[in-house]
Amino acid sequence: MKKKYLLTPGPSPVPAEVLAKEGMPIMHHRTSEFSEMFKRVEENLKEVYATKNDVLIIASSGTGAMEAAVFNTLSSNSKSVVCETGVFGARWSQIIKSAGLESLVLAEEYGDPVNLATLKKTLSENNGVTAVFGTLTETSTGVVNDIQAMVEIAHEYGAILVMDAISGIGGQEFLMDEWGVDVVVAGSQKGLMIPPGLAFISLNERAWELAAQSDLPKFYFDLKKYRSKVAAGQTPFTPPVSLIAGLDESLKMITQEGIQNVWQRHQKMAVATRAAVQALGLELFSSQPCDVVTAIKVPLGIDGGKIVKILREKYGVSIAGGQLSMKGKIFRIAHMGYMERFDLIIGITAIEMVLKELGVDIELGKGVSVAEKHVLGW
Amino acid sequence: MKKKYLLTPGPSPVPAEVLAKEGMPIMHHRTSEFSEMFKRVEENLKEVYATKNDVLIIASSGTGAMEAAVFNTLSSNSKSVVCETGVFGARWSQIIKSAGLESLVLAEEYGDPVNLATLKKTLSENNGVTAVFGTLTETSTGVVNDIQAMVEIAHEYGAILVMDAISGIGGQEFLMDEWGVDVVVAGSQKGLMIPPGLAFISLNERAWELAAQSDLPKFYFDLKKYRSKVAAGQTPFTPPVSLIAGLDESLKMITQEGIQNVWQRHQKMAVATRAAVQALGLELFSSQPCDVVTAIKVPLGIDGGKIVKILREKYGVSIAGGQLSMKGKIFRIAHMGYMERFDLIIGITAIEMVLKELGVDIELGKGVSVAEKHVLGW
Repeated sequence: MKKKYLLTPGPSPVPAEVLAKEGMPIMHHRTSEFSEMFKRVEENLKEVYATKNDVLIIASSGTGAMEAAVFNTLSSNSKSVVCETGVFGARWSQIIKSAGLESLVLAEEYGDPVNLATLKKTLSENNGVTAVFGTLTETSTGVVNDIQAMVEIAHEYGAILVMDAISGIGGQEFLMDEWGVDVVVAGSQKGLMIPPGLAFISLNERAWELAAQSDLPKFYFDLKKYRSKVAAGQTPFTPPVSLIAGLDESLKMITQEGIQNVWQRHQKMAVATRAAVQALGLELFSSQPCDVVTAIKVPLGIDGGKIVKILREKYGVSIAGGQLSMKGKIFRIAHMGYMERFDLIIGITAIEMVLKELGVDIELGKGVSVAEKHVLGW
Repeated sequence: MKKKYLLTPGPSPVPAEVLAKEGMPIMHHRTSEFSEMFKRVEENLKEVYATKNDVLIIASSGTGAMEAAVFNTLSSNSKSVVCETGVFGARWSQIIKSAGLESLVLAEEYGDPVNLATLKKTLSENNGVTAVFGTLTETSTGVVNDIQAMVEIAHEYGAILVMDAISGIGGQEFLMDEWGVDVVVAGSQKGLMIPPGLAFISLNERAWELAAQSDLPKFYFDLKKYRSKVAAGQTPFTPPVSLIAGLDESLKMITQEGIQNVWQRHQKMAVATRAAVQALGLELFSSQPCDVVTAIKVPLGIDGGKIVKILREKYGVSIAGGQLSMKGKIFRIAHMGYMERFDLIIGITAIEMVLKELGVDIELGKGVSVAEKHVLGW
């Protein structure tokens, strides 16, 4: 027997209660039964986003909602700035380029957060920037950015802040309205504890004003279409009804725990994970690590791909390797969504065992004992 | 107790075997386990499409794949013709308009199929049309179009034929390669027997040549990205893994039955449904009815909305009313996907009972007895 453990930063594990709801007979979407569920989902999503704005639901991967953010807030004459702190930050500039626009890209060394001074300098030297694009938690590097400071700087220079919070929402503390973030994108397969297939986007009034002026071509991702259907509990195109039924269940679980408690759980797991791997003599990749995933440098002389492969094939534990330029150099363990202390303990002990097996000089139990200290008596 | 029966033209019912697969623990998509499943799904989709071309899988509603068809085959100087035979035909011109292009729209009276002579005349009078857009089975009216004739005409004038087969694939006979259709779009929640959330698109070599030249802006729907990942059993963006696991199961069921037999089953149900409702004295809305849904005129003096409402609320049977200009004037009963003779018998008897209840002069059992004659001894 080999049980499987999913400790990857998306898709993340889905609670059995949610899977069961997804397995219910298909509901037709043009019914009061669906609308009622959809409205409840909408309300609970607002709680997770900490916003009073509508949170729109799109059938797509998270990237689809990123495209929606670009094509609805920018126009063919817009200037924009992209704060790139990893692979997913780079996606913003690719999407902006696909719209036929150029963006000013502020690329940090991967592992580092947005340099606020550079952002401020760039905006002060470039007039009329419409939007700054950034990332809450950069899944590829494990970095969290200082969103409150970024908002302040963007607004000082008259730009809106558009945030990819795909891997952060429902894990990393985030207050859309209080912090004043203008556009926030999320995905379903991370902190929201359902399978991939849904994306979310919320715009504040200022962003909707830009959307009203936007002249970039769009149809499926035209957010005005989605907004016009919210009050009726509907979507412009056939929604993935089974995923939305699952989301209804997962949001009940999240709001019952309380979003503040959810953030705290993630933070405790992140702190414990970092302490545990450092106790093993491993180094963190990020200089400003986030609460949803920990990126760890592969010990010198070890093949990073092998760590991931052995963990998956021999121990049944899925974690993530490094992407693109980080391939083989880091591995990433998630503490995201439907995870709590024992998921983390499985992850830490599995890492201890595989490193031992690969000949790294570590003491079995040293990491997990530190983790236990952090998570006992929750 | 009230059991529920879904006889709507999408979403259609999902087999319990498929729902169970969707309820399995989440699989990570960047694994050989996923790739193996994805490749099998790809092969089986080709069988359903009757094509050797790749069938690409996109996380979106069917409309997303329609947008992909437009933005990948047309360029900013392209001329196009839209054959509109209903609400979904009209969607083609809306999408083309969103790309900043005009199209020549050949709108038929709803209920009628594409007028082939008009199409031929239009193409002969307008040089250099890149693509003709059409619909296999128009869900809103129950019409099937003569695709083979449309292909022949389009090709005669150097245009490709782009086909919305969203509600037709896996129900209405359709042979992409043999008929020479250049681009074919499908959705998951119709004949393919899984919930909404996936869309499919296949291009032949000629369409790929147009895609290589296309200068319309796209990122999420850039099909070259999807094509480049097929050989590796992957997608460019996180795929809805649970829906794909369900699709793996439903495609096994379809290929086991044999796509020819699937088409035949749909045809038999369509013939039986038409005969039954006509025996009740009801009139068909379509002059060239398709095999996946039957549109029926609401009897004079009866509120069409009431038929749908009473069926759903009192009998637990979901059928569809008319859309937009057809609202209240028609009702539609599907025989699509995971349906066989007894689904149809439920539909016919339910219609008999609700019409009787509304005071229509019909004989209970008269329709169903005719239907039985058509479906006995399968």
